[in-house]
Amino acid sequence: MTHLKHLPLGYGGEFAIISAALKRWGALASGIGDDCAVLDVPAGERLVLSVDTAVEGVHFRRTWLSPEEIGYRATMAALSDLAAMAATPMGVAIALTLPTGWKDEFLALCDGIGEATKAVGARIIGGDLSRGADLSLSLTVVGHVATPLSREGARPGDAIWVTGALGGPLLALRAWERGETPDATARARFARPTARFDAARWLLAHGATAGLDLSDGLLSDAGHLAAAGGVQLVVNLDRLPALAGATAEDAAQSGEEYELLVTGPASLDAKAFEAACGLPITCIGAVVPPLPGEPLVEALRHGARVAVPRGHDHFPSP
Amino acid sequence: MTHLKHLPLGYGGEFAIISAALKRWGALASGIGDDCAVLDVPAGERLVLSVDTAVEGVHFRRTWLSPEEIGYRATMAALSDLAAMAATPMGVAIALTLPTGWKDEFLALCDGIGEATKAVGARIIGGDLSRGADLSLSLTVVGHVATPLSREGARPGDAIWVTGALGGPLLALRAWERGETPDATARARFARPTARFDAARWLLAHGATAGLDLSDGLLSDAGHLAAAGGVQLVVNLDRLPALAGATAEDAAQSGEEYELLVTGPASLDAKAFEAACGLPITCIGAVVPPLPGEPLVEALRHGARVAVPRGHDHFPSP
Repeated sequence: MTHLKHLPLGYGGEFAIISAALKRWGALASGIGDDCAVLDVPAGERLVLSVDTAVEGVHFRRTWLSPEEIGYRATMAALSDLAAMAATPMGVAIALTLPTGWKDEFLALCDGIGEATKAVGARIIGGDLSRGADLSLSLTVVGHVATPLSREGARPGDAIWVTGALGGPLLALRAWERGETPDATARARFARPTARFDAARWLLAHGATAGLDLSDGLLSDAGHLAAAGGVQLVVNLDRLPALAGATAEDAAQSGEEYELLVTGPASLDAKAFEAACGLPITCIGAVVPPLPGEPLVEALRHGARVAVPRGHDHFPSP
Repeated sequence: MTHLKHLPLGYGGEFAIISAALKRWGALASGIGDDCAVLDVPAGERLVLSVDTAVEGVHFRRTWLSPEEIGYRATMAALSDLAAMAATPMGVAIALTLPTGWKDEFLALCDGIGEATKAVGARIIGGDLSRGADLSLSLTVVGHVATPLSREGARPGDAIWVTGALGGPLLALRAWERGETPDATARARFARPTARFDAARWLLAHGATAGLDLSDGLLSDAGHLAAAGGVQLVVNLDRLPALAGATAEDAAQSGEEYELLVTGPASLDAKAFEAACGLPITCIGAVVPPLPGEPLVEALRHGARVAVPRGHDHFPSP
């Protein structure tokens, strides 16, 4: 058994397609061809694993993104869950459902998957290829970490911090849905997100008590931290770092940002963070004790409470 | 951080659906709700991981199986890859794409997934829920093993062994495709497969040199062992253990059996295996040195060479 080389594959059209992908990935893919991938978790560390699916027509439209971007984005979105735990990424396994009309774009899709995997220093460790009506990419990502940064752990008295500048994915979606071309910066925030591995490790090392990556929208995700920690989060929308062209409300609602939302010391050194990680971090509120009958998240705008706009939800309540 | 309890989830329709599934699974699911599942691999052991997808209309039809059976079968098929490596299963993560018309059957699907997970002593560790046109279940399974049983390692002089009795899934598919009701035994072999964990561990402990689980059909899968080992496999079709009603050719071609095909000593004690694992094992051929220009697998029938029927292939060559 080895996880350093591939096993020769059998024959058939499926294997020919997989072989073409392996050739494209080169040294980036390792140990494909056995029933399972075999990996070693460093002694004393824990395994972290997440699965994330992107379906054409639900998570993206084919007219919006190139096949490379579709592969890149789906892979980076999955990897972002490892980053949110402050983990070191190891491997990506790809369950790909390919409609007939996508056969020609398959290698471009593989290039995007490979590029995102390479960008974070991981490897492609396996996968499964199926036919189907919808293009669907289900990415399993695995990594290791000594002490994970959890969603649980926010304490009253903590400050709330967010990395980067928000609103880009929402601006891009809004433009596409109006039939317009999004601004290049906003489009890039949707098409080529970045998983914040270095930032999460820096934050964990500097006292972050809880954290997650922004996928549902800041206020929805703040609700996850509040629920997991048994606390209330008070978010000051006036302070949200918004991308040029985005309002505070846009920044509060925009999903699939893959920036980090953490709780931790109010004394966090934002300049040192920016110097170390190459991106800004902003204090946007505070953690308070939960109040009976109060919502998990309270949003303030111009000093007054505002209703919490809902983020992204694939299955809206009836 | 914990992997023993769930974190409280946020609000929204998606979370309501997930909460209903978690309630159904009870103690079988653990540590859901953070960005990643966190698992511990026993010291000195290796992590094994596989991904397997089942798509409605490609891998099964809705009219053939109950929702429970669809969930059970997809999960056990994925787990079978861990069994094939002689691993101990730990966790199952579920990427589920649910068409609108499946909302009512969601909990029954979860029951089937849970039942298969429980049957092998694993836990449900996470997942991702999406909307989509096709029902699709992509199962990531993880386990641990000190020394995996690989596809690589078959040596000239080894015997070829197969567990169980073959042909059931093919008989069931044939009946369904004719619009008939399959025989109950054949149907159960398709709808409720068993991953052969105990059998693989017994075989590894008793000298198996290489092995895999039968998913593409015995002769195709024999080709994978031959390719991985750089050898030729000579399979005597007259010796194939066939289920009542199945011919030797059926047994050679039937896919998704999830029985084990291994190479190893000709002196293997079949009676001791049957006593330990509760299923038969049959010697069906021999491993020989590869011959230039010869196929990876040579099939004999009534003492003469026969053409190798091709197994299952989702992407037939043009």
